[in-house]
Amino acid sequence: LDYQHVQVPFEITLWIMLASLAKIGFHLYNKLPSVVPESCLLIFVGLIMGGIIYGLNDRSPPVMDSDIFFLYLLPPIVLDAGYFMPSRPFFENIGTILLYAVVGTIWNVFGIGFSLYGICQVKAFRLQDVSLLHNLLFGSLIAAVDPVAVLAVFEEIHVNEKLHILVFGESLLNDAVTVVLYKLFRSFCEMPTIKSVDVFAGVGKFFVVGLGGVLVGLSFGFTAAFTTRFTKDIRVIEPLFVFLYSYLSYLTAEMFHLSGIVVIISCAMGMKRYVEANISLKSHTTVKYFMKMWSSVSDTLIFIFLGVSTIGENHEWNWPYICFTVIFCLVWRALGVLVLTFFVNRFHVNTITSKDQFIIAYGGLRGAICFSLVFLLPDFHRKKLFIAATTVVILFTVFVQGMTIRPLVDLLAVKRKRESAPTVGEQIHIRFLDHLLAGIEDISGHWGQYYWKDKLEYFNSKYLQKILLREYDQPKSSIVLLYEKLERKHAIELAQAGQLGHGLAHPSFLCSAFLCSSSDRTVITDQKLEDTPNPDVLDNMQEILARNLYRIRRTGPAYNRHTLPGDSEPTEHAKEILILRHKSL
Amino acid sequence: LDYQHVQVPFEITLWIMLASLAKIGFHLYNKLPSVVPESCLLIFVGLIMGGIIYGLNDRSPPVMDSDIFFLYLLPPIVLDAGYFMPSRPFFENIGTILLYAVVGTIWNVFGIGFSLYGICQVKAFRLQDVSLLHNLLFGSLIAAVDPVAVLAVFEEIHVNEKLHILVFGESLLNDAVTVVLYKLFRSFCEMPTIKSVDVFAGVGKFFVVGLGGVLVGLSFGFTAAFTTRFTKDIRVIEPLFVFLYSYLSYLTAEMFHLSGIVVIISCAMGMKRYVEANISLKSHTTVKYFMKMWSSVSDTLIFIFLGVSTIGENHEWNWPYICFTVIFCLVWRALGVLVLTFFVNRFHVNTITSKDQFIIAYGGLRGAICFSLVFLLPDFHRKKLFIAATTVVILFTVFVQGMTIRPLVDLLAVKRKRESAPTVGEQIHIRFLDHLLAGIEDISGHWGQYYWKDKLEYFNSKYLQKILLREYDQPKSSIVLLYEKLERKHAIELAQAGQLGHGLAHPSFLCSAFLCSSSDRTVITDQKLEDTPNPDVLDNMQEILARNLYRIRRTGPAYNRHTLPGDSEPTEHAKEILILRHKSL
Repeated sequence: LDYQHVQVPFEITLWIMLASLAKIGFHLYNKLPSVVPESCLLIFVGLIMGGIIYGLNDRSPPVMDSDIFFLYLLPPIVLDAGYFMPSRPFFENIGTILLYAVVGTIWNVFGIGFSLYGICQVKAFRLQDVSLLHNLLFGSLIAAVDPVAVLAVFEEIHVNEKLHILVFGESLLNDAVTVVLYKLFRSFCEMPTIKSVDVFAGVGKFFVVGLGGVLVGLSFGFTAAFTTRFTKDIRVIEPLFVFLYSYLSYLTAEMFHLSGIVVIISCAMGMKRYVEANISLKSHTTVKYFMKMWSSVSDTLIFIFLGVSTIGENHEWNWPYICFTVIFCLVWRALGVLVLTFFVNRFHVNTITSKDQFIIAYGGLRGAICFSLVFLLPDFHRKKLFIAATTVVILFTVFVQGMTIRPLVDLLAVKRKRESAPTVGEQIHIRFLDHLLAGIEDISGHWGQYYWKDKLEYFNSKYLQKILLREYDQPKSSIVLLYEKLERKHAIELAQAGQLGHGLAHPSFLCSAFLCSSSDRTVITDQKLEDTPNPDVLDNMQEILARNLYRIRRTGPAYNRHTLPGDSEPTEHAKEILILRHKSL
Repeated sequence: LDYQHVQVPFEITLWIMLASLAKIGFHLYNKLPSVVPESCLLIFVGLIMGGIIYGLNDRSPPVMDSDIFFLYLLPPIVLDAGYFMPSRPFFENIGTILLYAVVGTIWNVFGIGFSLYGICQVKAFRLQDVSLLHNLLFGSLIAAVDPVAVLAVFEEIHVNEKLHILVFGESLLNDAVTVVLYKLFRSFCEMPTIKSVDVFAGVGKFFVVGLGGVLVGLSFGFTAAFTTRFTKDIRVIEPLFVFLYSYLSYLTAEMFHLSGIVVIISCAMGMKRYVEANISLKSHTTVKYFMKMWSSVSDTLIFIFLGVSTIGENHEWNWPYICFTVIFCLVWRALGVLVLTFFVNRFHVNTITSKDQFIIAYGGLRGAICFSLVFLLPDFHRKKLFIAATTVVILFTVFVQGMTIRPLVDLLAVKRKRESAPTVGEQIHIRFLDHLLAGIEDISGHWGQYYWKDKLEYFNSKYLQKILLREYDQPKSSIVLLYEKLERKHAIELAQAGQLGHGLAHPSFLCSAFLCSSSDRTVITDQKLEDTPNPDVLDNMQEILARNLYRIRRTGPAYNRHTLPGDSEPTEHAKEILILRHKSL
């Protein structure tokens, strides 16, 4: 027997196996996951395992190594989150999300830090040796909402898309704030005196971490997309590049003390569109599936380790400090959400209701990131108190808030996610409205989100696609892709039902009949539907779809009330906009 | 900058990235891979990189760690090989493969070992300090054909299925012999005296490693299949189990000094059938794709590392020893193949031609396994000589033999692999012949391969499927599965060509028309083909297919010339066979 030799991979494999089997176990009893969130069950399994290890060895079980967490467990989850981020609601609410993530987190950090410092001044609590800086440091790690915990709970409660993206987007983007503040306070703790220059450097660093992170991530994402241009002959390693480049971007971020989460999210969102167009359908399935699988395993392992690491002798118990930490976390978050939402609602038509505000405040779960950060703290005599407080906050938020949020969502009748995917008709209308609004913004001279979206789309199709896509001469619009996907899905369904060769009325024809403009309708109606086995029909339809929907803003600038059809020179157009802009100013 | 922190994952990711980019690079120039095998190109890249590292650091570049090779790089390749092993040709030729793998490898080990010992006795060569045991130890590591190298070359030359499986199967199964002989000689080297008991223990160990390996592998495989019974609600982690259980089986084998290759191959072959039936189609694509991807990356890394590790100061050069090693490797392998094939051909109708024999002998490539084993040798004063000889043999076989084998295959006009997959008709005939031959073997009382195959199939459908499959009440025969797969493929093709809803003549109908027996034909012909959108038709067809082909040996034992239709009681049947058996004896 030679266990030493295989120990490392063997134990890793066993842990993953345990996590996967635990997952299977929960799902065998269908009732369990519908009442208790999986994250709670997994922490519970971890607690039991930690207890067993503690009982057998009579010493604390190994705590989750912060390096393992940040280097191996967190990236898959964030990559998955970034790659499958619903970009439309994300960008529609980007302002609100940034407000919550940046201002909200800073508010929480200082709120919790200062009020805990206030508690420390009460003599009866015997906490006078905890300085303000230490309290702020603690605040900086406990204030941030955890994406892993939020994802685990919010994926099960199915609230409406906007509410989900507000909480989840905040939990992802606040990482930049956490990284900056945590490192700032940690270095302040080790400095003898703090100059005002250092504070300004901290503020400057925030922009470096935020904007730099986005730039680094996007450059990795575009490199990944560019690489997949050349994988046509070796389809088999295509999926690899998605993982390699995202992981490299994350590691680069960690190396330069940027926010790994922000970088990997930008990388994933930057590459997705182009990678998907370049790689084969099967590669795409593999990427999707493997990402989901990997993040699901990481997620499971994190919660089990969280449970295991809770048991042991790392804790120093101090009732007042711990109780007030929990209370302040709740209170400051609630206040922050109320105040920020007040400002957000003043500038938006589509306001955030008070129910939604409650769920945003209540959904501020803490998780493994705080836990790893508190173990990374430099050693000082009250570290164990901070560990205990962090553990309690995490367990409180995950168990109490995580378990009650579903009944509360039911009770308050919070608007749910719509069950069905949008129909083709709806998608077309949304797209049409986008173009319409972009046109209106153009005319009114207002540089709103539709204007920028349109400009980005133009830049994308003019430059990026030519560089990053293999077949850049015929970029397919998402509506054509959707149509092809529906077609394929329908074909497989027909094959499974054994009706191949018989069905006539199916989405593609309905859709094409609905879409084709009157001038083009002849193409299809000329040929009988029953006997048209030539692929030209499809090409025609795709062309119609592409022409009528995608390039409408490019080919016919008929929105502009000042130009007549035909005289839409690019320079004219630009001049027109400039004039409008001047007028509006 | 904090490089230490991310060093390990960063460098691993960079190596994988380098390997993948090298692969892309080769395929950009289409002519290159058609002349030079990829393995040679990769070793060449490795040599250049090794040269650069040596030039910059002025010391030997890091050699490929044997632990990394055996624990992380080899398993994916072997898993891929086992999972996609064409089981029919493998089991049809299992006798020949085992003969080559076991007797052939032992022959090579002792042949090379003894004749090198002979060379060592020539005083002019100054090799008299290399003992017989050391020569045999060297023989045991240099004799075995390497699956990674064989796969890399044979996948590109497309020889016929039988020839491919003979060389490849041998290269996989000889691992058991290599493991036993290598460890035996190594322990003999460290023993003061060798008793005859030790030799017998070695022979006994061979059976433990071989049969024990198969049993361990199968038990892991069946456990994996059993686990996938319960993954219906969490499809996303299904693919994981395939990888986890195979890897665990490999690590367990390494732990107990079994042959990791044999174990993982049995595990993969044991689980495949059941896992495929249990998991979803998308999970299956992910498993397939990821296995291919992983093995492709491992393969690339192995050859690059092989090149990198070649450069350096690990070598002791001795012309006679190294030249004679290469010559003996070639000569003994050629002799072994000739002698063994002579015996094989005496007992087979479908003989191995002399051209095939030449390719089998010539295709005996050595690779990274020898290389890792030679570095694992205990330190003694001639280790560097062995390293040099191994490196030369590997480079000679991969470069000279690997590059000339394709022209030789062309020159000799070796029978190639058939380009097209067998048609449904052929598949049905093959299956029909199987049943016929099983019946003939039953009647003649000859316990041949068809008899055993039939018994295994019976055991499988009676017991294994009920335990391992989720929907065991309706096991689908492979012909029905094939039919469904064709149907699905056809549907996707139709959808891509935009002909959905128009095609009438497609494989399913041709196939069903061909298959349905006269008594059942009414079922289909009663209904017009054009207007039958109800799924009953398919059910009917499947039932017909299943009844007529799969259960034919079970439902109507009409082969037996002694029983009349109707009196086929199981006991009667068994008695009948017994009587026949007695007569034949």
